[in-house]
Formats: sequence, structure tokens, C-alpha cells
Amino acid sequence: MTSTMKAAQFFGQRDIRVVEIAKPQPKDHEALVAIEWCGICGSDLHEYLHGPLTIPTKERPHAITGEHIPITMGHEFCGRVISAPSGSSLTSGQAVMVDPRIYCSKCSRCNTGGTQGCTTGGFKGLSGTGGGFSETVAIDAKLCYPLPDSVDLSLAALIEPLAVAWHAISLCGVPDWTNKSALILGGGPVGIAHIFVLRSLGCKQIYVSEPTDSRAAQNKTVADAVFNPIKDDVGDKCRDLTRGEGVDTVFDCAGIQNGMGAGMDALRFQGTYMNVALWPTPMVMPFYPLMSKEITTKCSLAYNDKDFNDTTDAFVAGKFKGIELMVTSRIHIDDISKKGFDELVTNKDQHIKILVTPDKSMV
Amino acid sequence: MTSTMKAAQFFGQRDIRVVEIAKPQPKDHEALVAIEWCGICGSDLHEYLHGPLTIPTKERPHAITGEHIPITMGHEFCGRVISAPSGSSLTSGQAVMVDPRIYCSKCSRCNTGGTQGCTTGGFKGLSGTGGGFSETVAIDAKLCYPLPDSVDLSLAALIEPLAVAWHAISLCGVPDWTNKSALILGGGPVGIAHIFVLRSLGCKQIYVSEPTDSRAAQNKTVADAVFNPIKDDVGDKCRDLTRGEGVDTVFDCAGIQNGMGAGMDALRFQGTYMNVALWPTPMVMPFYPLMSKEITTKCSLAYNDKDFNDTTDAFVAGKFKGIELMVTSRIHIDDISKKGFDELVTNKDQHIKILVTPDKSMV
Repeated sequence: MTSTMKAAQFFGQRDIRVVEIAKPQPKDHEALVAIEWCGICGSDLHEYLHGPLTIPTKERPHAITGEHIPITMGHEFCGRVISAPSGSSLTSGQAVMVDPRIYCSKCSRCNTGGTQGCTTGGFKGLSGTGGGFSETVAIDAKLCYPLPDSVDLSLAALIEPLAVAWHAISLCGVPDWTNKSALILGGGPVGIAHIFVLRSLGCKQIYVSEPTDSRAAQNKTVADAVFNPIKDDVGDKCRDLTRGEGVDTVFDCAGIQNGMGAGMDALRFQGTYMNVALWPTPMVMPFYPLMSKEITTKCSLAYNDKDFNDTTDAFVAGKFKGIELMVTSRIHIDDISKKGFDELVTNKDQHIKILVTPDKSMV
Repeated sequence: MTSTMKAAQFFGQRDIRVVEIAKPQPKDHEALVAIEWCGICGSDLHEYLHGPLTIPTKERPHAITGEHIPITMGHEFCGRVISAPSGSSLTSGQAVMVDPRIYCSKCSRCNTGGTQGCTTGGFKGLSGTGGGFSETVAIDAKLCYPLPDSVDLSLAALIEPLAVAWHAISLCGVPDWTNKSALILGGGPVGIAHIFVLRSLGCKQIYVSEPTDSRAAQNKTVADAVFNPIKDDVGDKCRDLTRGEGVDTVFDCAGIQNGMGAGMDALRFQGTYMNVALWPTPMVMPFYPLMSKEITTKCSLAYNDKDFNDTTDAFVAGKFKGIELMVTSRIHIDDISKKGFDELVTNKDQHIKILVTPDKSMV
């Protein structure tokens, strides 16, 4: 075995390079994991096009890792254990999904279950100490979720974006989705992850507002109705499907002002508007529906330990039926710039998730 | 007894006239109530300065009352029963506080306890069928809340603005306020009502952000700390008082963009921002704190039957200690324009609540 490995690192805007770097040396509490698959996330693309944003620079290294550009990217990854710390139940060869988060475990938020809000937190693949677009990662063994042989490891990396949706849906505080309705604004990867999680929780009225034909076509295979916000009155469509009341919850996976207007209009009295999107513009609240319908607005931030665990359990239990449709391309790490990032820039609406592997035999 | 009575009616912007109108004739389900006191609300003042806003006009009469300008004003009123419907437990001379709301009792919101959201709802005193700035009102007997002799009827009209605060505080869903902290933005009448309700619920950390000296002086007599948002960093002040965490809840009784910025900054992780204000400008959400702290934002709209009942019960039980400080002036209906509305326009910050009576012997 050589002491170096391939890693796709972010050097700057539109500058991701596959380089040879030293293999990580696991610390006492860390497992060494051989990556099989890692998804390209919207936030990766955002960094590629407009970064460094959250990626640390020399001037502002990350508070916990101390690292900065160049940073190995990729935070949606699964693989197999190479070595595990002594005392760990992990064994060599064990398939695992990795919770890629970095948090301090000391602040009041971490200490009360709110690790997603850790004031110095970050992600492997964005904040340093390695990432999923590489051959191996050293990671705290407690962040490795063992997967039984029955699980298709070629799909398991999807657990991470599903956990994002799981957290937002959990934050709604709805004990039973069976008779609830939801409108998803934006049928991209995050929106589709919401469809799968809502479906796994028994929701039978899942509507999507999506303006592009290609995404709408994808959405139609899994949602109960798909509206075109350019042609349709989304509020009227939702009321038609909910005996005039409006939907119980809106998930904003778009972050667009017109979408928010339509979403607020589509909500029922005392409904919930859950924002999952990063807004590029100021978020102006449409006051009249907000007040007259006593709407609750929330923002969701990544996921916490429980969400990741629950999502993994649901994945292992086969609750996300048809999830393979989310994978629209599989590529080798050597092709990550051209067939990964540039492909998403050029043909974004044709793709849901592109998965990357360092193993030539997989693609 | 004559068949006419005095009533202060809204004819248009800055045009409130005390006129003689026909006394109301109660319908079968209605009690006839002799008004003792009625408060001037901020929304009354808003109509006076900028209306007609919610007050119906000839071109858009109210959906339930069918009435339009001129409209008898006043919706914060108490009095004594003159006559009650047969079968009612109300008796002649009985002191009552009146829930002034008008709602259809037919729509899905009314049928599920959300009468405050009735799509055709309104208020006596703003939407027709009489109001509290008059001698008598005919009102559904079930909206008359009997008050025992122990209650000071000269203060009971305050139950209405207290019910507004009660509803907003209830909507927060906090089961026990004993160890919770609250920041109130704007120490005017609505803000002060929130202080009294929070205190009645056991809250021991009530902070106010108020820029005017006169209101701050009033606030200091009832709040635990008062900040000047022009001089103080309200977020830092709140963190200093909450072991660095920030307050659990913000009540926005101001509706000002800078206030919202300070309020969002002052909130703890997963805190609640409850808006009670009518915003004259677009409400632009400060995205970073909203997302990084997973803040819940809600809007509160008036109150429902349970809120009014609970507030009246708390008032009768003497839970609002010191509430008399809210009354800064008592005037006769003949003086309502000059000593009521114009006084509030000129010396707004000196006043909390001005109460109006049609009975010369009371003032």
C-alpha cells in the first residue's frame, strides 16, 4: 500500500483538482474508511461557482480543524471500514454510512442535542480533515453507521441528503403524516429527498411546484401532483386538492421570493412554512397571509445525531422505495470536474444526484 | 327613556363625530349592555390617522354585518346588562366584559376553534353593529363574560388588550414560563399587556427594548430590565442576562425592521420570534440568525374564545397585579376626538390606555 491517495480538492472558484495527498492516519477514536461512493451536493456546487463561502481560507481557518484551502471536498459518503479503534464494534470490511459533521461536543447546543447548531461546527468535505472525494477518510468511530449486507452500498450515500430532509420534516413537529398534506417548492435533489422521506412517513398528499420540464418529469414519478408555478396558480391548485383549506406544510427547497409568495398562499390556517433553502436574496415575508393565517415559519439546518440515526434505520428497513431514481450519473473521481461539477453547471435540471467513486471497477 | 343615544362614529380620516343614533334593539340571542368603559386601541388610532383600513366602506360593506361608514367605534368595552335573552344566566345589572368579535360560526376555522381566523370575521367597533364608544350595545349573550362584584369594572376593559397578549403568548406553546425569558420589542400598550400576562404566568425574566424615555420609564416599573435600542446592543444585553444563550422568546410589538434585527440577534438557538405588530413596511427576515439558530417565527392574530375566557378568569382571580398603571387617562365620550384621539396623536408616548365612558358621573 502506498502512503498517498487521490483526493479532489477545492483550490478556489471553478478550481477543483484531483491531487495526490498523504493518506489520513486515524487517531485513537477514529476508524479508517475506504470510500465507495460520495454524492455531489448543491452546497458543493455553490462553493464551486461562488466560493470559497463556508470553505475556510488561510485568513479564516476552521475553528475546530484549523485547516483551510486546499480542502478535500465531499460530505455525502459511504464506504467500508479498513481499521477500527480498539473497543469499537466496527470490523474490517464492514459497510458504513458516515455522518460527516464536525462539532465541538462542548457548547450548550451540542450538550442539549442541538449538534446541528454547534457554533464552531462544520463538515468533513467542506471544513477540513478530509472528505468523501478521496480514497480514505479517518473519522470518529461513533459517526460511522454500520450497514447490513442487505443494503445496497451503491445507494447508501443518499442517506445524507435524506437526513437533511428528515431533520426539516421532524422540525415540523407533526406526530403523524398519514392525513397531512405537503407542498414542496423546488423539485431538485433537496425537494426530491423530502418526497421520499414524507412518503416513508406515510404522507399521501405530496405536491411539488417546479418550473422546469425536466425536473417536473422526474417529480411526477414520485409526487402526487406537480404544478408549474409559471402557468398554474399553485395556491388554487393546492386548495382544490385539500377541500379548500390549503396544505398543512410547505417545504421551501427553492429560496425564491415568488415561490414563497405562492407557498404562503397555498398554506392552510396555522400551517407551517419550513425553509430548507439558502436564500441568495433578502427573504421578504408576505405579511398578509402570514398574519391572517397565523403561519409558523421555520428554518432547518442540516441534521442532528438522532436524524442521521433515524434516516439510516429507515434506509436499512427499505422505507425509501424507488430511491435509485435519485442517482442520475456515476463517475470516477478523475472525471469529477468535467463529468461532475461542470455537468451540473451545464445540465443541472437533468440531474438529481451524481455519485463519485475512487474505484475504477465501480464505473 | 329616549330611543336615541350618543355614539362616536368614524366618518373618515381624522373625522370622528359624536352623533345621536338609534339605540340598538337586541335580537333573540342578544343581551343589551350599558357601556361603562371602552379603551382606545392602537388599531382605532391607526384607522383615525390612515383609515378607512379595515373599517368597511360603502363600496365594500362588511361581509357579516353588511354595514359601512359611518361606523360606531370602540371594541375594548365592559358594562352592565340591561336586558338578557330568555334562558340566559345573565341578569339585569350584571357586570360583564364583552368579547367584541364577530365571526360566522360556520367556516372550517370557526368550527375547529380558530374563530380568530374566520375568513369573514370582524369586530364590533370596527365592522358594524355598534361599538363601545356609545351608550349601549346589543351583543350575543354568549360573548358577555360575567364579572363578580369583586372586580373593579373601571379596569375590566383592559381584559381585551390583555387577551391579545394572552393569545400571542399561548401560541408560543410554552407549557411553563417560570424559567423562560422573554424580550418585548416596543413598550407601548401592547408590549405592556404582554408584560402583565407573562408575569401572571410566572415569567421572571421579562426584558423590554423601548427607545422613548417616557415609555421606558413606565416599562421599568413592571419589567425586569429595559434597554434602549438606540444606545444599547440589545442582543448583548440579553445574552448577558441569560448565561450567553439569548432569550427564549421575542414578542415583536413594534413592527420595525431594526427591531426585528435586534430581536433575532437576541434569541437563543431554536427560540421563537412572535410577531404581534402590524408592519407598515415589508418584513425582511434576517436570514443568517434565522437559519443558523433555527428560529421559529409566528404571527398572532387577535384571540379566540378560549383566550378571552382564560384572560377573564385570570383578571377575576387578580393575576394582573398593578394593572391600573395601564390607564393613563379617563375621558367622557363628548371629548373623544380632542382628549382621546388627538391626545394620542400628540402625546402618544405619555399614554398607555385612554378609557372612554358615556357616563358623565364617572369622570
